Amino acid sequence: MNRRMVVNTLGRIILIESVLMFIPFMISAGYGEWNAALAFGITFLAAGLAGFLTVRITAEHDRGIHAREGFVIAAFSWILMSLIGAVPLAVSGEFPSYIDALFEIVSGFTTTGASVVRDLSALSHGILFWRSFTHWIGGMGVLVLMMAIIPDDSGRSIFIMRAEMPGPVVDKIVPKVKNTAKILYLIYFVLTAAEVIMLLFGGMDLFESLVHSMGTAGTGGFGIRADSLGSYSPYCQWVITAFMLLFGLNFNLYYLIIAGKIRSALRSEEMHVYLGIAVVSTTIIAINVARMYSTVGEVIRHSAFQMASILTTTGFSTVDFNQWPGLSKTILVVLMCIGGCAGSTAGGLKVSRVILIIKGIGSEIKHLLHPRSITRGTFEGKGITKELRSGVNSYFALYILVFAVTFIIVSFESFDFETNATAVIACMNNIGPGLAGVGPAAGYYDYSVVSKLVLSLAMLMGRLELYPIILAMASIGKRNIGSARLSQTKRAVRRS
Amino acid sequence: MNRRMVVNTLGRIILIESVLMFIPFMISAGYGEWNAALAFGITFLAAGLAGFLTVRITAEHDRGIHAREGFVIAAFSWILMSLIGAVPLAVSGEFPSYIDALFEIVSGFTTTGASVVRDLSALSHGILFWRSFTHWIGGMGVLVLMMAIIPDDSGRSIFIMRAEMPGPVVDKIVPKVKNTAKILYLIYFVLTAAEVIMLLFGGMDLFESLVHSMGTAGTGGFGIRADSLGSYSPYCQWVITAFMLLFGLNFNLYYLIIAGKIRSALRSEEMHVYLGIAVVSTTIIAINVARMYSTVGEVIRHSAFQMASILTTTGFSTVDFNQWPGLSKTILVVLMCIGGCAGSTAGGLKVSRVILIIKGIGSEIKHLLHPRSITRGTFEGKGITKELRSGVNSYFALYILVFAVTFIIVSFESFDFETNATAVIACMNNIGPGLAGVGPAAGYYDYSVVSKLVLSLAMLMGRLELYPIILAMASIGKRNIGSARLSQTKRAVRRS
Repeated sequence: MNRRMVVNTLGRIILIESVLMFIPFMISAGYGEWNAALAFGITFLAAGLAGFLTVRITAEHDRGIHAREGFVIAAFSWILMSLIGAVPLAVSGEFPSYIDALFEIVSGFTTTGASVVRDLSALSHGILFWRSFTHWIGGMGVLVLMMAIIPDDSGRSIFIMRAEMPGPVVDKIVPKVKNTAKILYLIYFVLTAAEVIMLLFGGMDLFESLVHSMGTAGTGGFGIRADSLGSYSPYCQWVITAFMLLFGLNFNLYYLIIAGKIRSALRSEEMHVYLGIAVVSTTIIAINVARMYSTVGEVIRHSAFQMASILTTTGFSTVDFNQWPGLSKTILVVLMCIGGCAGSTAGGLKVSRVILIIKGIGSEIKHLLHPRSITRGTFEGKGITKELRSGVNSYFALYILVFAVTFIIVSFESFDFETNATAVIACMNNIGPGLAGVGPAAGYYDYSVVSKLVLSLAMLMGRLELYPIILAMASIGKRNIGSARLSQTKRAVRRS
Repeated sequence: MNRRMVVNTLGRIILIESVLMFIPFMISAGYGEWNAALAFGITFLAAGLAGFLTVRITAEHDRGIHAREGFVIAAFSWILMSLIGAVPLAVSGEFPSYIDALFEIVSGFTTTGASVVRDLSALSHGILFWRSFTHWIGGMGVLVLMMAIIPDDSGRSIFIMRAEMPGPVVDKIVPKVKNTAKILYLIYFVLTAAEVIMLLFGGMDLFESLVHSMGTAGTGGFGIRADSLGSYSPYCQWVITAFMLLFGLNFNLYYLIIAGKIRSALRSEEMHVYLGIAVVSTTIIAINVARMYSTVGEVIRHSAFQMASILTTTGFSTVDFNQWPGLSKTILVVLMCIGGCAGSTAGGLKVSRVILIIKGIGSEIKHLLHPRSITRGTFEGKGITKELRSGVNSYFALYILVFAVTFIIVSFESFDFETNATAVIACMNNIGPGLAGVGPAAGYYDYSVVSKLVLSLAMLMGRLELYPIILAMASIGKRNIGSARLSQTKRAVRRS
């Protein structure tokens, strides 16, 4: 393990977070919210100094890193980022405890949007902005941001990106990781800006537009009103529906469009399935909830909004879908697990994994009938390799296992089955609201400290796609995990 | 597809069922329950005639069968068996409709034990016996029974057995399938008889001992009292706890013991994990429910009984575990999905699959860290092959997919999330009682006709381990499924 490089990268992450925190500091100051401004100011300075010193002390650029370091860097970056990001919430006194602040910020960075805040109107503008800003940073990823903005990172390369980016296969869209990161952030920024402008046209003020656009872009879901987007105009609700779906698409498609390869973008199998799921589930939900709203337009708007919000794992709402009939609620829970496309800012299993899993079942059935025939099929025009299939299947198995273990632990709480089950599903898949006691009209405030920490871990596992956090936990529990195999590894693995 | 052979085998199954039905006919007559006796008598004669004619007309022994026929035979045998087995329940007038009767008998044969009966005391002895007898037949399997008792079945062979027997790997324990089937049924019979005798010692009358022993042996769970086994003596409850665990073990272990290979039986990895799960979950449940019962003995007895009943997917109960705290209920739901050992009469995923899934995740993590190293590990002393791992993973993915689809359909019902979710889990894994509206103190009577049929299908899918029923449904929907590939198949696959 290249510890020096790991610590150095963590130092850079702290430094970046400190710089980012200057924005909510300015906003707090601008609104004259001095408690919050002070909290951000102190954290900004302390984190900045700590980050700067860490980077200086560990500066060294002559050794590369491997897959293991990628996972460890991703896990610890996100944990550290959350631990620091929660400080202003607690110091400002706007959150009752540090654990509550931590839950809220983990929920922010992981783009979950699950909240422990009982009364949003009591929060200052600076804190509200910071919550939503963490969605925006977490959506595309802070390590990707680091690779985009900090010069000379040849050694950190693709492994970190793979550990942070969602989806079964992560690859550079252009040969250099650094340029890939820049392109991704550029697309992300432009799309977000477009949403801000469209929401401004809809009558939202700049603050509201910014906060909601960042929440949409990261598929996060923190709002600023008790009814989320329920009291905004139908226009704003439709704009957000559209942008949620756009941010749930694989960003590679936008790059293909920019590069003039519109045809090959339109051929994306994952996109077809994603949009198919969107249309089919909106239709079923609309029929199922038709009696609850007065006009057809309203029925379609609420069905489409909630579908888009849940499928893309954003978590905004225009109505309390916990009041919907069972069928619609079950469909929403299934959508929670599917999630958006790989390479998007959405959580969940990802549509591509679901496709690969179902194709894998098809191959297995064929194999059972014709034991000597081996047909693995294709995905996005390429043959599905053994490694890809077994990787996706193992991921799915691990996903269910993590769900089961988390659900057992959270069942210590006295809440009902539906509340606990959907709380875990909503956190693991980075949605935010679940059903019953954690529905859109409720929150996570009544959970115990232990459950808040466990659910925070579930959010991080969901965002980083399980392996980084599990490896990090394993390496804490067993310092020298696999160190016996280190020499063997060194022989086997060479930096790419 | 060797249709003649398929139909011929179905004829034999009908014939066997008809003969088996003679027993409840005699019991009904013995108790002077003439309605039930008449119902069994008519079905016995009609099925017997139909079976006899079918076998005669399609008699032909010169061609073998392949994997496809094995699946189709298993699926249609079980469907046909259920359709016929339900007739006496409806004809006798003891069940309000044929669909209710069908649900009950599918639940019987699949050893689920989910019931639509509101008042068990209103049922006749003959019907009560038949319900439990279907558990016993379904536990080891009617096709295995056929292979054990009907001479000259060289052509039907291992494929049928593989399609009916549970577990990721099914193989003969002795070279001949016929002898394997005989040995399995002998062990099954002796263990059942041992339980009958021990329950007689505990003060149950012969009828009660028989019914409960058959329900235990098949890990079914139909009882004859409203409180299941709640009002029987602690001795009887402990005897049943022990036998439930015994019937949840792989029967190959009993053969090894008979064959004097006690050491290799004791080395069984699956058994160790199975017993480990039993001990750990009983301990957690006992601590969790300690306040609810007055003595330590009671706490341990109820915890162990419910654990054994759910882990082995039997479904008997001594208390209403729906009243237990959330943690215990969640553990029970997880145990429902795990199920017993492969090669036992239990349902669920099977302990061996869970072990293989977890080992697969371990290998995947190693592979992620060391991309060039491939370690697949061992299970029961043998290396885990690629095929086994990918087969188990696909099975698990399909299992979750079937759960999701069934859950969505059942969500049309107005019941709450917990009721619908656990109804599907309890049916698919062949347990019987779930939680809330389908808890041990309630039943499936309020479900609509559609849901009863869907849940019946889920029970059959669970018992036959998904593929046979799915292939049968596919072949109904699309008559000539894969017929284009038939010649290819014929070349590729030869009868073993």
